[in-house]
Amino acid sequence: MNQLLRVQNFNVSRDGYGAGEHQSLEQPFGHADPGDMFAWAGATASWPMRADPGGSRGLDDYFTRDFARNIGAEIMGRNKFGPQRGPWRDHEWRGWWGNEPPFRTPVFVLTHHTRPSFTLSDTTFHFVDGDPATVLDLARKAAGGKDVRLGGGPTTIRRFLDADLVDTMHVAVSQVELGSGVRLWESPDELLDRFHLEVVPSPSGVIHHLFWRR
Amino acid sequence: MNQLLRVQNFNVSRDGYGAGEHQSLEQPFGHADPGDMFAWAGATASWPMRADPGGSRGLDDYFTRDFARNIGAEIMGRNKFGPQRGPWRDHEWRGWWGNEPPFRTPVFVLTHHTRPSFTLSDTTFHFVDGDPATVLDLARKAAGGKDVRLGGGPTTIRRFLDADLVDTMHVAVSQVELGSGVRLWESPDELLDRFHLEVVPSPSGVIHHLFWRR
Repeated sequence: MNQLLRVQNFNVSRDGYGAGEHQSLEQPFGHADPGDMFAWAGATASWPMRADPGGSRGLDDYFTRDFARNIGAEIMGRNKFGPQRGPWRDHEWRGWWGNEPPFRTPVFVLTHHTRPSFTLSDTTFHFVDGDPATVLDLARKAAGGKDVRLGGGPTTIRRFLDADLVDTMHVAVSQVELGSGVRLWESPDELLDRFHLEVVPSPSGVIHHLFWRR
Repeated sequence: MNQLLRVQNFNVSRDGYGAGEHQSLEQPFGHADPGDMFAWAGATASWPMRADPGGSRGLDDYFTRDFARNIGAEIMGRNKFGPQRGPWRDHEWRGWWGNEPPFRTPVFVLTHHTRPSFTLSDTTFHFVDGDPATVLDLARKAAGGKDVRLGGGPTTIRRFLDADLVDTMHVAVSQVELGSGVRLWESPDELLDRFHLEVVPSPSGVIHHLFWRR
Protein backbone atom coordinates (compact mmCIF):
# COMPACT_ATOMS: atom_id res chain seq x y z
CA MET A 1 0.00 0.00 0.00
CA ASN A 2 2.47 2.62 -1.17
CA GLN A 3 0.05 5.09 -2.71
CA LEU A 4 -2.95 5.62 -0.48
CA LEU A 5 -6.36 6.84 -1.59
CA ARG A 6 -7.26 9.46 1.05
CA VAL A 7 -10.40 11.44 1.77
CA GLN A 8 -9.31 14.68 3.47
CA ASN A 9 -11.36 17.35 5.21
CA PHE A 10 -14.68 16.18 3.84
CA ASN A 11 -17.55 17.95 5.58
CA VAL A 12 -20.93 16.46 6.43
CA SER A 13 -23.85 17.72 8.47
CA ARG A 14 -24.80 16.14 11.79
CA ASP A 15 -27.47 14.19 9.92
CA GLY A 16 -24.98 12.79 7.39
CA TYR A 17 -25.39 15.00 4.30
CA GLY A 18 -22.31 16.06 2.33
CA ALA A 19 -24.18 18.47 0.04
CA GLY A 20 -27.51 20.24 0.11
CA GLU A 21 -30.32 20.06 -2.43
CA HIS A 22 -30.76 22.29 -5.49
CA GLN A 23 -27.11 22.79 -6.44
CA SER A 24 -26.73 25.65 -8.93
CA LEU A 25 -24.12 28.01 -10.30
CA GLU A 26 -24.94 30.47 -7.52
CA GLN A 27 -25.18 27.83 -4.78
CA PRO A 28 -22.42 25.23 -5.17
CA PHE A 29 -23.59 23.43 -2.02
CA GLY A 30 -27.31 23.78 -2.70
CA HIS A 31 -29.27 24.79 0.38
CA ALA A 32 -26.28 24.00 2.63
CA ASP A 33 -24.49 27.15 3.80
CA PRO A 34 -20.76 26.65 3.24
CA GLY A 35 -20.10 29.35 5.84
CA ASP A 36 -21.65 27.03 8.44
CA MET A 37 -20.26 23.76 7.14
CA PHE A 38 -16.64 24.87 6.66
CA ALA A 39 -16.27 27.50 9.39
CA TRP A 40 -13.88 25.28 11.35
CA ALA A 41 -11.46 25.07 8.39
CA GLY A 42 -11.63 28.72 7.38
CA ALA A 43 -10.59 29.77 10.90
CA THR A 44 -7.24 27.95 10.73
CA ALA A 45 -3.81 29.32 9.83
CA SER A 46 -3.26 26.67 7.13
CA TRP A 47 -6.59 27.03 5.27
CA PRO A 48 -5.45 26.89 1.62
CA MET A 49 -7.63 29.81 0.54
CA ARG A 50 -6.62 32.08 3.42
CA ALA A 51 -5.74 35.55 2.13
CA ASP A 52 -4.72 37.25 5.39
CA PRO A 53 -2.13 36.11 7.94
CA GLY A 54 -3.30 34.80 11.31
CA GLY A 55 -5.67 31.98 12.08
CA SER A 56 -5.71 29.31 14.76
CA ARG A 57 -2.95 26.72 15.16
CA GLY A 58 -4.78 24.21 17.33
CA LEU A 59 -6.27 20.84 16.46
CA ASP A 60 -8.23 21.92 13.37
CA ASP A 61 -5.07 23.33 11.82
CA TYR A 62 -3.50 19.86 11.79
CA PHE A 63 -6.29 18.82 9.44
CA THR A 64 -6.11 21.79 7.07
CA ARG A 65 -2.33 21.56 6.89
CA ASP A 66 -2.54 17.85 6.05
CA PHE A 67 -4.70 18.60 2.99
CA ALA A 68 -1.78 18.77 0.54
CA ARG A 69 0.83 16.64 2.34
CA ASN A 70 2.13 13.95 -0.01
CA ILE A 71 -0.83 14.34 -2.40
CA GLY A 72 0.02 13.93 -6.09
CA ALA A 73 -3.45 13.90 -7.69
CA GLU A 74 -7.13 14.35 -6.87
CA ILE A 75 -10.26 12.55 -8.05
CA MET A 76 -13.55 14.44 -7.86
CA GLY A 77 -17.10 14.02 -9.03
CA ARG A 78 -18.49 16.27 -11.72
CA ASN A 79 -20.65 18.14 -9.21
CA LYS A 80 -17.56 19.33 -7.37
CA PHE A 81 -16.31 20.84 -10.63
CA GLY A 82 -19.52 22.61 -11.58
CA PRO A 83 -23.34 22.50 -11.62
CA GLN A 84 -23.76 21.40 -15.25
CA ARG A 85 -25.53 18.14 -16.06
CA GLY A 86 -25.47 16.30 -19.42
CA PRO A 87 -23.29 17.37 -22.39
CA TRP A 88 -21.00 20.37 -21.80
CA ARG A 89 -22.48 23.47 -23.44
CA ASP A 90 -19.98 26.11 -22.38
CA HIS A 91 -16.29 25.16 -22.55
CA GLU A 92 -15.31 28.69 -21.57
CA TRP A 93 -16.62 28.12 -18.05
CA ARG A 94 -13.78 26.30 -16.32
CA GLY A 95 -15.12 25.29 -12.95
CA TRP A 96 -15.89 26.76 -9.58
CA TRP A 97 -12.30 27.00 -8.47
CA GLY A 98 -11.13 30.25 -10.03
CA ASN A 99 -7.86 30.88 -11.81
CA GLU A 100 -5.79 29.48 -8.94
CA PRO A 101 -7.49 26.27 -7.89
CA PRO A 102 -6.27 25.00 -4.50
CA PHE A 103 -5.43 21.49 -5.77
CA ARG A 104 -2.04 22.16 -7.41
CA THR A 105 -1.90 18.67 -8.93
CA PRO A 106 -3.61 16.81 -11.77
CA VAL A 107 -7.35 16.51 -11.01
CA PHE A 108 -9.50 13.76 -12.53
CA VAL A 109 -13.14 14.79 -12.90
CA LEU A 110 -15.55 11.87 -13.25
CA THR A 111 -18.08 12.44 -16.01
CA HIS A 112 -19.88 10.52 -18.74
CA HIS A 113 -19.25 13.55 -20.96
CA THR A 114 -15.54 13.92 -21.54
CA ARG A 115 -13.94 17.15 -22.76
CA PRO A 116 -10.34 18.27 -23.38
CA SER A 117 -8.01 18.71 -20.41
CA PHE A 118 -6.94 22.22 -19.44
CA THR A 119 -4.57 23.82 -16.95
CA LEU A 120 -5.28 26.67 -14.54
CA SER A 121 -2.15 27.83 -12.71
CA ASP A 122 -0.61 24.60 -11.36
CA THR A 123 -3.79 22.50 -11.51
CA THR A 124 -4.66 20.44 -14.62
CA PHE A 125 -8.23 19.14 -14.96
CA HIS A 126 -8.79 15.88 -16.85
CA PHE A 127 -12.31 14.64 -17.63
CA VAL A 128 -12.62 10.88 -17.49
CA ASP A 129 -15.38 8.33 -17.90
CA GLY A 130 -14.61 5.05 -16.16
CA ASP A 131 -15.22 2.83 -13.19
CA PRO A 132 -13.54 3.76 -9.89
CA ALA A 133 -10.68 1.25 -10.18
CA THR A 134 -9.76 2.45 -13.68
CA VAL A 135 -9.84 6.11 -12.70
CA LEU A 136 -7.79 5.43 -9.56
CA ASP A 137 -5.22 3.70 -11.71
CA LEU A 138 -4.97 6.81 -13.93
CA ALA A 139 -4.67 9.09 -10.90
CA ARG A 140 -1.98 6.94 -9.28
CA LYS A 141 0.09 7.04 -12.46
CA ALA A 142 -0.24 10.84 -12.56
CA ALA A 143 0.61 11.23 -8.85
CA GLY A 144 4.33 10.58 -9.23
CA GLY A 145 4.51 8.09 -6.39
CA LYS A 146 2.46 10.24 -4.01
CA ASP A 147 -0.99 9.57 -2.58
CA VAL A 148 -4.29 10.37 -4.31
CA ARG A 149 -6.94 12.53 -2.66
CA LEU A 150 -10.57 11.58 -3.16
CA GLY A 151 -12.19 14.98 -3.11
CA GLY A 152 -15.91 14.17 -3.06
CA GLY A 153 -18.77 14.88 -3.28
CA PRO A 154 -20.67 12.32 -1.26
CA THR A 155 -21.84 10.24 -4.23
CA THR A 156 -18.27 9.90 -5.51
CA ILE A 157 -16.96 8.89 -2.09
CA ARG A 158 -19.74 6.29 -1.79
CA ARG A 159 -18.79 4.81 -5.17
CA PHE A 160 -15.14 4.39 -4.11
CA LEU A 161 -16.14 3.03 -0.70
CA ASP A 162 -18.46 0.53 -2.37
CA ALA A 163 -15.54 -0.57 -4.57
CA ASP A 164 -13.40 -0.89 -1.40
CA LEU A 165 -10.72 1.46 -2.76
CA VAL A 166 -10.49 4.00 0.08
CA ASP A 167 -7.52 3.63 2.48
CA THR A 168 -8.00 6.53 4.90
CA MET A 169 -10.84 8.99 5.39
CA HIS A 170 -11.16 12.16 7.44
CA VAL A 171 -14.72 13.45 7.73
CA ALA A 172 -15.55 16.57 9.76
CA VAL A 173 -19.08 16.38 11.14
CA SER A 174 -20.52 19.83 11.80
CA GLN A 175 -23.34 20.76 14.18
CA VAL A 176 -25.50 21.84 11.24
CA GLU A 177 -28.66 19.85 10.40
CA LEU A 178 -29.55 19.81 6.69
CA GLY A 179 -32.62 17.58 6.70
CA SER A 180 -32.16 16.66 3.04
CA GLY A 181 -29.52 16.59 0.34
CA VAL A 182 -26.91 14.06 -0.78
CA ARG A 183 -25.96 11.62 1.93
CA LEU A 184 -22.54 10.30 2.81
CA TRP A 185 -23.99 7.96 5.44
CA GLU A 186 -26.86 7.26 7.79
CA SER A 187 -24.24 6.70 10.49
CA PRO A 188 -20.43 6.37 10.50
CA ASP A 189 -20.91 2.98 12.16
CA GLU A 190 -21.81 1.59 8.73
CA LEU A 191 -18.09 1.52 7.96
CA LEU A 192 -16.84 -0.22 11.10
CA ASP A 193 -16.71 -3.64 9.46
CA ARG A 194 -13.90 -2.43 7.22
CA PHE A 195 -12.33 0.53 9.02
CA HIS A 196 -10.92 1.55 12.36
CA LEU A 197 -12.63 4.73 13.55
CA GLU A 198 -11.50 7.41 15.96
CA VAL A 199 -13.98 10.15 16.87
CA VAL A 200 -12.24 13.34 17.98
CA PRO A 201 -14.30 16.35 19.10
CA SER A 202 -12.59 19.65 18.34
CA PRO A 203 -12.79 22.73 20.58
CA SER A 204 -14.29 24.47 17.52
CA GLY A 205 -17.42 22.30 17.76
CA VAL A 206 -16.79 20.12 14.72
CA ILE A 207 -16.27 16.38 15.35
CA HIS A 208 -13.44 14.83 13.37
CA HIS A 209 -13.97 11.23 12.24
CA LEU A 210 -10.79 9.38 11.29
CA PHE A 211 -11.05 6.10 9.43
CA TRP A 212 -8.32 3.76 8.31
CA ARG A 213 -8.46 0.25 6.90
CA ARG A 214 -8.59 -2.72 9.24
CA MET B 1 6.47 35.48 11.46
CA ASN B 2 7.66 33.54 8.46
CA GLN B 3 9.92 31.02 10.19
CA LEU B 4 8.24 29.60 13.28
CA LEU B 5 10.03 28.07 16.25
CA ARG B 6 8.00 24.91 16.95
CA VAL B 7 8.06 22.35 19.74
CA GLN B 8 6.76 19.07 18.27
CA ASN B 9 5.79 15.82 19.96
CA PHE B 10 7.41 16.68 23.27
CA ASN B 11 6.40 14.19 25.96
CA VAL B 12 5.82 14.94 29.63
CA SER B 13 4.46 12.86 32.48
CA ARG B 14 1.10 13.62 34.08
CA ASP B 15 3.00 15.46 36.82
CA GLY B 16 4.90 17.66 34.36
CA TYR B 17 8.32 16.02 33.99
CA GLY B 18 9.97 15.83 30.59
CA ALA B 19 12.86 13.61 31.69
CA GLY B 20 13.57 11.35 34.64
CA GLU B 21 16.42 11.55 37.13
CA HIS B 22 19.83 9.87 36.80
CA GLN B 23 20.30 10.12 33.03
CA SER B 24 23.12 7.87 31.85
CA LEU B 25 24.49 6.24 28.72
CA GLU B 26 22.28 3.22 29.40
CA GLN B 27 19.23 5.26 30.43
CA PRO B 28 18.79 8.28 28.15
CA PHE B 29 15.60 9.26 29.98
CA GLY B 30 16.85 8.46 33.48
CA HIS B 31 14.28 6.62 35.55
CA ALA B 32 11.54 7.44 33.03
CA ASP B 33 10.64 4.47 30.83
CA PRO B 34 10.56 5.65 27.22
CA GLY B 35 8.37 2.66 26.38
CA ASP B 36 5.68 4.20 28.60
CA MET B 37 6.23 7.83 27.70
CA PHE B 38 6.34 7.41 23.92
CA ALA B 39 4.04 4.44 23.39
CA TRP B 40 1.43 6.61 21.68
CA ALA B 41 3.92 7.75 19.02
CA GLY B 42 5.53 4.36 18.41
CA ALA B 43 2.12 2.87 17.60
CA THR B 44 1.49 5.21 14.64
CA ALA B 45 2.11 4.58 10.94
CA SER B 46 4.24 7.74 10.60
CA TRP B 47 6.58 7.20 13.56
CA PRO B 48 9.98 8.18 12.06
CA MET B 49 11.82 5.20 13.54
CA ARG B 50 9.24 2.63 12.47
CA ALA B 51 10.92 -0.36 10.83
CA ASP B 52 7.87 -2.44 9.88
CA PRO B 53 4.82 -1.40 7.84
CA GLY B 54 1.48 -0.91 9.61
CA GLY B 55 0.61 1.30 12.54
CA SER B 56 -2.43 3.40 13.36
CA ARG B 57 -3.65 6.29 11.19
CA GLY B 58 -5.89 8.03 13.69
CA LEU B 59 -5.37 11.22 15.66
CA ASP B 60 -1.90 10.41 17.03
CA ASP B 61 -0.62 9.83 13.51
CA TYR B 62 -1.37 13.46 12.61
CA PHE B 63 1.17 14.45 15.25
CA THR B 64 3.92 12.04 14.26
CA ARG B 65 3.51 12.89 10.59
CA ASP B 66 3.78 16.60 11.38
CA PHE B 67 7.20 16.09 13.01
CA ALA B 68 9.19 16.83 9.85
CA ARG B 69 6.72 19.00 7.88
CA ASN B 70 8.40 22.25 6.83
CA ILE B 71 11.22 21.84 9.39
CA GLY B 72 14.64 23.04 8.21
CA ALA B 73 16.70 22.80 11.43
CA GLU B 74 16.50 21.61 15.04
CA ILE B 75 17.82 23.08 18.27
CA MET B 76 18.41 20.67 21.16
CA GLY B 77 19.99 20.73 24.59
CA ARG B 78 23.18 18.81 25.21
CA ASN B 79 21.33 16.20 27.28
CA LYS B 80 19.29 15.21 24.24
CA PHE B 81 22.53 14.55 22.37
CA GLY B 82 24.22 12.48 25.08
CA PRO B 83 24.78 11.96 28.81
CA GLN B 84 28.22 13.63 29.03
CA ARG B 85 28.74 16.67 31.26
CA GLY B 86 31.71 19.07 31.17
CA PRO B 87 34.45 18.92 28.49
CA TRP B 88 34.03 16.28 25.78
CA ARG B 89 36.34 13.34 26.47
CA ASP B 90 35.38 10.97 23.66
CA HIS B 91 34.88 12.52 20.23
CA GLU B 92 34.33 9.10 18.72
CA TRP B 93 30.98 8.78 20.48
CA ARG B 94 28.60 10.68 18.26
CA GLY B 95 25.34 10.84 20.15
CA TRP B 96 22.40 8.65 20.99
CA TRP B 97 20.84 8.82 17.57
CA GLY B 98 22.76 6.13 15.66
CA ASN B 99 24.10 6.37 12.15
CA GLU B 100 20.77 7.55 10.70
CA PRO B 101 19.46 10.20 13.08
CA PRO B 102 15.76 11.00 12.51
CA PHE B 103 16.31 14.77 12.18
CA ARG B 104 17.56 14.96 8.55
CA THR B 105 18.46 18.64 8.89
CA PRO B 106 21.17 20.71 10.58
CA VAL B 107 20.92 20.25 14.38
CA PHE B 108 22.28 22.86 16.81
CA VAL B 109 23.33 21.34 20.14
CA LEU B 110 23.53 23.84 23.00
CA THR B 111 26.70 23.38 25.03
CA HIS B 112 29.31 25.44 26.84
CA HIS B 113 31.88 23.00 25.41
CA THR B 114 31.97 23.36 21.66
CA ARG B 115 33.44 20.72 19.37
CA PRO B 116 33.72 20.32 15.58
CA SER B 117 30.55 19.73 13.57
CA PHE B 118 30.01 16.31 11.99
CA THR B 119 27.50 14.68 9.66
CA LEU B 120 25.71 11.37 10.09
CA SER B 121 23.66 10.41 7.03
CA ASP B 122 21.60 13.56 6.28
CA THR B 123 21.86 15.12 9.75
CA THR B 124 24.70 17.54 10.63
CA PHE B 125 25.33 18.28 14.30
CA HIS B 126 26.73 21.71 15.23
CA PHE B 127 27.79 22.48 18.82
CA VAL B 128 27.09 26.04 19.83
CA ASP B 129 27.49 28.16 22.95
CA GLY B 130 25.14 31.13 22.99
CA ASP B 131 21.97 32.65 24.34
CA PRO B 132 18.66 31.41 22.88
CA ALA B 133 18.13 34.37 20.51
CA THR B 134 21.62 33.97 19.00
CA VAL B 135 21.24 30.24 18.52
CA LEU B 136 17.79 30.66 17.01
CA ASP B 137 19.24 33.14 14.56
CA LEU B 138 21.88 30.58 13.50
CA ALA B 139 19.24 27.87 13.14
CA ARG B 140 16.93 30.09 11.08
CA LYS B 141 19.75 30.89 8.67
CA ALA B 142 20.50 27.17 8.30
CA ALA B 143 16.83 26.25 7.81
CA GLY B 144 16.56 27.55 4.25
CA GLY B 145 13.35 29.48 4.88
CA LYS B 146 11.66 26.64 6.74
CA ASP B 147 10.64 26.48 10.39
CA VAL B 148 12.94 25.48 13.27
CA ARG B 149 12.05 22.65 15.65
CA LEU B 150 12.92 23.09 19.32
CA GLY B 151 13.66 19.50 20.27
CA GLY B 152 14.02 19.70 24.06
CA GLY B 153 14.76 18.58 26.72
CA PRO B 154 12.63 20.38 29.24
CA THR B 155 15.37 22.76 30.44
CA THR B 156 16.05 23.89 26.88
CA ILE B 157 12.37 24.46 26.17
CA ARG B 158 12.06 26.48 29.40
CA ARG B 159 14.97 28.69 28.35
CA PHE B 160 13.37 29.48 25.00
CA LEU B 161 9.95 30.03 26.62
CA ASP B 162 11.51 32.39 29.16
CA ALA B 163 13.06 34.32 26.25
CA ASP B 164 9.60 34.40 24.56
CA LEU B 165 10.92 32.81 21.36
CA VAL B 166 8.53 29.85 20.99
CA ASP B 167 5.72 30.24 18.43
CA THR B 168 3.87 26.92 18.66
CA MET B 169 4.19 23.98 21.03
CA HIS B 170 2.75 20.49 20.99
CA VAL B 171 3.18 18.61 24.27
CA ALA B 172 1.82 15.09 24.74
CA VAL B 173 0.95 14.45 28.38
CA SER B 174 1.06 10.74 29.22
CA GLN B 175 -0.70 8.95 32.07
CA VAL B 176 2.66 8.08 33.66
CA GLU B 177 3.61 9.69 37.01
CA LEU B 178 7.35 10.25 37.45
CA GLY B 179 7.43 11.92 40.85
CA SER B 180 10.79 13.54 40.17
CA GLY B 181 13.05 14.53 37.30
CA VAL B 182 13.36 17.59 35.08
CA ARG B 183 10.18 19.62 34.91
CA LEU B 184 8.62 21.30 31.92
CA TRP B 185 5.89 22.85 34.06
CA GLU B 186 3.88 22.62 37.25
CA SER B 187 0.77 23.12 35.10
CA PRO B 188 0.17 24.06 31.45
CA ASP B 189 -1.93 26.96 32.75
CA GLU B 190 1.33 28.80 33.49
CA LEU B 191 1.54 29.60 29.77
CA LEU B 192 -1.99 30.92 29.24
CA ASP B 193 -0.96 34.55 29.55
CA ARG B 194 1.02 34.25 26.32
CA PHE B 195 -0.51 31.31 24.46
CA HIS B 196 -3.79 29.93 23.26
CA LEU B 197 -4.20 26.35 24.49
CA GLU B 198 -6.28 23.49 23.18
CA VAL B 199 -6.39 20.27 25.19
CA VAL B 200 -7.20 17.25 23.03
CA PRO B 201 -7.52 13.79 24.62
CA SER B 202 -6.50 11.01 22.25
CA PRO B 203 -8.16 7.57 22.13
CA SER B 204 -4.66 6.20 22.94
CA GLY B 205 -4.80 7.75 26.42
CA VAL B 206 -2.28 10.54 25.86
CA ILE B 207 -3.56 14.12 26.11
CA HIS B 208 -2.29 16.45 23.41
CA HIS B 209 -1.69 20.06 24.45
CA LEU B 210 -1.52 22.54 21.59
CA PHE B 211 -0.19 26.04 22.23
CA TRP B 212 0.14 28.94 19.86
CA ARG B 213 0.97 32.58 20.47
CA ARG B 214 -1.77 35.01 21.42
